[in-house]
Amino acid sequence: MEVQNILHMIGGEGDTSYANNSTIQRTAINKVRPIVEEAILDLYCISFPKKLIMADLGCSSGPNAPLVLSNIIDAISMKCRELNHPLPEFQMFLNDLPGNDFNTIFRSLPGFYEKLKEEKGVDFGLCFVAGVAGSFYGRLFPTRSLHFVHSSYSLHWLSQTFQVPQRLQITLNGGSIYLAKTSPLSVFKAYLAQFQNDFSLFLKLRSEEIVGGGRMVLTLIGKISSDPSNIECCWEPLAQALNDMVIQGVIEQERVDSFNLPYYAPSIHELKDIIETDGSFSLDRLEIIEPGYFKSAQEAAKIVRAITESMLAGHFGEAILDDLFQRYEVVVAEYLSNEKANPIRLVLSMTRKG
Amino acid sequence: MEVQNILHMIGGEGDTSYANNSTIQRTAINKVRPIVEEAILDLYCISFPKKLIMADLGCSSGPNAPLVLSNIIDAISMKCRELNHPLPEFQMFLNDLPGNDFNTIFRSLPGFYEKLKEEKGVDFGLCFVAGVAGSFYGRLFPTRSLHFVHSSYSLHWLSQTFQVPQRLQITLNGGSIYLAKTSPLSVFKAYLAQFQNDFSLFLKLRSEEIVGGGRMVLTLIGKISSDPSNIECCWEPLAQALNDMVIQGVIEQERVDSFNLPYYAPSIHELKDIIETDGSFSLDRLEIIEPGYFKSAQEAAKIVRAITESMLAGHFGEAILDDLFQRYEVVVAEYLSNEKANPIRLVLSMTRKG
Repeated sequence: MEVQNILHMIGGEGDTSYANNSTIQRTAINKVRPIVEEAILDLYCISFPKKLIMADLGCSSGPNAPLVLSNIIDAISMKCRELNHPLPEFQMFLNDLPGNDFNTIFRSLPGFYEKLKEEKGVDFGLCFVAGVAGSFYGRLFPTRSLHFVHSSYSLHWLSQTFQVPQRLQITLNGGSIYLAKTSPLSVFKAYLAQFQNDFSLFLKLRSEEIVGGGRMVLTLIGKISSDPSNIECCWEPLAQALNDMVIQGVIEQERVDSFNLPYYAPSIHELKDIIETDGSFSLDRLEIIEPGYFKSAQEAAKIVRAITESMLAGHFGEAILDDLFQRYEVVVAEYLSNEKANPIRLVLSMTRKG
Repeated sequence: MEVQNILHMIGGEGDTSYANNSTIQRTAINKVRPIVEEAILDLYCISFPKKLIMADLGCSSGPNAPLVLSNIIDAISMKCRELNHPLPEFQMFLNDLPGNDFNTIFRSLPGFYEKLKEEKGVDFGLCFVAGVAGSFYGRLFPTRSLHFVHSSYSLHWLSQTFQVPQRLQITLNGGSIYLAKTSPLSVFKAYLAQFQNDFSLFLKLRSEEIVGGGRMVLTLIGKISSDPSNIECCWEPLAQALNDMVIQGVIEQERVDSFNLPYYAPSIHELKDIIETDGSFSLDRLEIIEPGYFKSAQEAAKIVRAITESMLAGHFGEAILDDLFQRYEVVVAEYLSNEKANPIRLVLSMTRKG
């Protein structure tokens, strides 16, 4: 099962928790905005291309989908006015898995174009949005066809639950659902190996699609250090809530043992290693932005439920979810006070060499 | 109201009439296949581009959406084998209005890619499908970015119900819903003027988007002669059924008077005129393919209902539809025997000059 989309499934019909996550994503996009602007202006001012072809990978279907494009147009418009230069044409490919709700994005576009025209005036040039369905762990675009790639809050999701040989190691993680203090070293290694595979594949594919001098800005969840005892606050309490339900006979031990989140929050060191080994991108910036603290246990439960709901329902059945997240809300409270346990967000700004 | 999509709305949930129209479209695409192949091979063999960027305008959401792409890949693959030449990359933009069901297209793509790989073998290169939502009476793609444009069964739909001054003229068409023997000459002129506006706009926009030497193959419904007495079999009986319902007090006279199909089946002469006036395309071929005879009155009622249902429901309310099409089935029978009344299909193959 591919889970690039679990963040994106939220927001579907009858989902009341969407707004929360949408707000988190919007905050992240706005924090990263100066880094995106720097990258796109650097790129633009080198050769002043007449068309800027861009992609947003893992765009989801929420109201934020065209937000990055809008920020980019703002920055370029300002620069063009400053230089008394005609605006380039913009083409933005919004990508997510085939299960994503592209209809909602497309139906919001007439309003988006209308607003652009209003804000930028009638002289505003041409802006084209297209949708592309597919995993970003596969090729999505023609060779050397993109100037700029953006991805926000998607790359910490692994390509599939687990590949052999990682799949064998991971069975030793019984009782935990992600890396935990009790996880054997081999499980830590298996998770890292899977992330290394996935992220190098991602870089290889994008290096084929991006033009020389093209830029890429990626935001993902990371961890401060590679120290295994540094544990994220989201997942440990979720495992604890699930295990409580095992003890009380609500779910079977085997179900929890066989569940492992296809997620990995890498350290800066791990990321740098993979980028250097791939060799096709230079890393211009790597920034830590402040962790996304949860304001309350209630908020944590709401957001973590939104993110994991479809995956948990697929594995455990939908019936357990209300019970599970009531327990989670109680358990997570004590983790929130531990600042160290909050995951960090990493922003990488890179240039395609050559 | 824009109605480019009325052909495409069929196939939605609970619509049982979809398969009929899907079959008609598939038959049309297969009839036009040799013309598409000729155009794409001519184009390819001039410069052997490494990427072929194409668009299908008014693609609908049915199973035929990737069919044209599949035919094109077949033709190019064969040519490449013949010449011992590496395959180019293919990028196909599927376009329809924002209300089209793109989710269904996107969810069918993994199966489409899988089948391509199976049929063409592992050596098969890269094929990318993207969705673009918007009216083709507006710009959809960056300047000079397309090699090939295809559109099947869409261009006989006008851009909007009617523009001023046509909107004023059309009020004189009371009792008819399209051009009829009783329509005043001014109504004929208004319909033609609207089509001329729309089709010249279409050519102007595409001439901006297509590279010099790029090709375009369009299929649309047309009429044999410009003679106003040559009336299509579909619409006259629909008007008759509606007027019967007026006489019996089921619907109001005013409702029928204010309804005019935003549809126009041009003659060859009218099309040639517009293409010459625009001047940016040379017309390489204009072919008549055999009319889409209805096999029975029942089939005619089913298909015409599928095509017009959403539009009629919007104007008259859904409640009248069952009654209307029962009447239509009776009335249409006598028209079917008149071969002259069957509309023809025109295929235009053009090259972007310069």
